[in-house]
Amino acid sequence: MPTTPAPFTADDYRARMARAADAAADAGLAGVLVAPGPDLVHLTGYRPGITERLTVLVLAAGQEPVLVVPTLEAPDAEQAPGAAALTVRDWTDGQDPYAATAPLLDVGGRFGVSDNTWAMHLLGLQKQLPGASYVSLTEALPMLRAVKDAHELARLEAAGAAADETYQEILKVRFAGRGETEVAADLAALLKQFGHSQVDFTVVGSGPNGANPHHEAGDRTILHGDMVVLDFGGLKHGYGSDTSRTVHVGEPTPAEQHVHDVVREAQQAGFEEVRPGVACQEIDRAAREIIEEAGYGDLFIHRTGHGIGVTTHEPPYMIEGEEQPLVPGMCFSVEPGIYLPGRFGVRIEDIVTVTEDGGRRFNNTPREMAIVE
Amino acid sequence: MPTTPAPFTADDYRARMARAADAAADAGLAGVLVAPGPDLVHLTGYRPGITERLTVLVLAAGQEPVLVVPTLEAPDAEQAPGAAALTVRDWTDGQDPYAATAPLLDVGGRFGVSDNTWAMHLLGLQKQLPGASYVSLTEALPMLRAVKDAHELARLEAAGAAADETYQEILKVRFAGRGETEVAADLAALLKQFGHSQVDFTVVGSGPNGANPHHEAGDRTILHGDMVVLDFGGLKHGYGSDTSRTVHVGEPTPAEQHVHDVVREAQQAGFEEVRPGVACQEIDRAAREIIEEAGYGDLFIHRTGHGIGVTTHEPPYMIEGEEQPLVPGMCFSVEPGIYLPGRFGVRIEDIVTVTEDGGRRFNNTPREMAIVE
Repeated sequence: MPTTPAPFTADDYRARMARAADAAADAGLAGVLVAPGPDLVHLTGYRPGITERLTVLVLAAGQEPVLVVPTLEAPDAEQAPGAAALTVRDWTDGQDPYAATAPLLDVGGRFGVSDNTWAMHLLGLQKQLPGASYVSLTEALPMLRAVKDAHELARLEAAGAAADETYQEILKVRFAGRGETEVAADLAALLKQFGHSQVDFTVVGSGPNGANPHHEAGDRTILHGDMVVLDFGGLKHGYGSDTSRTVHVGEPTPAEQHVHDVVREAQQAGFEEVRPGVACQEIDRAAREIIEEAGYGDLFIHRTGHGIGVTTHEPPYMIEGEEQPLVPGMCFSVEPGIYLPGRFGVRIEDIVTVTEDGGRRFNNTPREMAIVE
Repeated sequence: MPTTPAPFTADDYRARMARAADAAADAGLAGVLVAPGPDLVHLTGYRPGITERLTVLVLAAGQEPVLVVPTLEAPDAEQAPGAAALTVRDWTDGQDPYAATAPLLDVGGRFGVSDNTWAMHLLGLQKQLPGASYVSLTEALPMLRAVKDAHELARLEAAGAAADETYQEILKVRFAGRGETEVAADLAALLKQFGHSQVDFTVVGSGPNGANPHHEAGDRTILHGDMVVLDFGGLKHGYGSDTSRTVHVGEPTPAEQHVHDVVREAQQAGFEEVRPGVACQEIDRAAREIIEEAGYGDLFIHRTGHGIGVTTHEPPYMIEGEEQPLVPGMCFSVEPGIYLPGRFGVRIEDIVTVTEDGGRRFNNTPREMAIVE
């Protein structure tokens, strides 16, 4: 197991910003505008609080990266891990921050804008530069953060291993007679114990609650005879984990076992489809086909997967219509499910990375249905 | 002191949504589009996680409110406190959520968009309805959440009282020889002890760190002879607190005392300017004038205040250029400061509400410089 990885350096960030500027130019963009959030973390290591005050990184080919920040926050920005690779330019309360940013931009250019940039800021720039046009970064450069380098893969692998340790330990706790939130608290404590700095979700969906794929954990007391969907993850050393297993309190019925078998087979089929050049939607199709053939197609009510990196939820998406080909270094979840309203749900999920000749899982606990007490 | 206030009802949310739709019509808007965040909390009580999946409340005069949500999240949306006052309409992974939203909108209309809506979603709507136009809610309806009703004022007052109790207790702890982060942890624990569900910030700016108004709390050990800026707040029963006092470890020098006196006088001048009909910028001018006259104008490097409600930071802003007249029920901070780079900073802040005949403070601890150990 890796210990604390070495921090990323200003050179790492310089290379990422250069790659992004080049990719933008290749995509016909005049540049990229990045507000606080995961893209800014990826490109600069800077994690300011998100407020109504404009902070934006401007990247354009052949131009030094400029980070526009409120004067108040300039001292913090100058301490960011990637600060040595960019120029900080500040604007003061009372100034128009969009007017301060506009001189950095090509008045007739097309710009990629980070997805989570506030609409207020986009509208401010649109007003200032009516001749420019804008497109979301996910649409323009969907793969900006999708392909991970070796340092990033090592962090994702470590996060996955910590999630697996969490799962192995949670099998030992009591389920029957305890509230979902109690088991969820156990999951959170275990994720922290195994090195997570941040817990993003701890889903405990028992019995009928498991049939709502977005249920987190509630007041319901878990009963003997329940199916229980467990889906948990967070960040370790800045990179995400996310795994799901569905367990049973006591022996399952043949019907429950059957549904679980179908999902397991679907998850395996999705995984086996992973290799360079295959379109993302093929992963979804491979998993969905198994579930449809078993007659549960209408009950698999979400996409098969999502990317993971500095967030637990990012492109690429394994969904019908996503024709992006897989590239070695991409990392994403494969997580089919079947949800029987009012009865129970089953979901099985691993994080998978694309290798030169197939896929490799970062979650490796047994996918057979575990029996808990 | 109030105990737990009664929860807001569907009728409360119905009234707020109707008021917003009417205000939008008055402002010449075809409607209002509200993504997850404080505006959605205010209008519906719904607090979903914020993801790349579109969730948007559509309000238009003469039309029932519609909340567009991903299918996965529909069960949660239907449990929202304001759900009985609106219709939930869902879209499924693989569908275009913007195409699903467009039929609710006037193709040539002008819409107010909540500030923190993701740019990705605004761009999706702009593409779907190229004839419509958009403006940020803060620009179109800056006062949407600014005027608080009696129930809201009671909550803000309770939050302010809890922050005051926190301040009274923090004066009793040891400062000299302890790290800023230790005192910050004390502040957080006290805010929780006095009923805050969420701590948003615990600034402890000792000595030169106090001269950076956005410094939070760092590794620096507080020394005898330091000025220390304390600025803390969060949410209690869903409404915000935010207060600042500047204390001194041991006796201050005459120069330190003088700077503190100037800020205290400026804060008082800002407060005394508060009454209905006065423009927000006049609060800033009144406070700034005192500081300028004392020769420290260049060292007061931020606006004088910001609104507070379901967030600790919202319109109206007390800043030069903001001509919005004050209205009874508005609540905001009055927080002038002076920042001497490399030496120390002073900031004094109260939350103030506008009454029929002036202003009333929700923070009432002494503003004289307290001496701590």
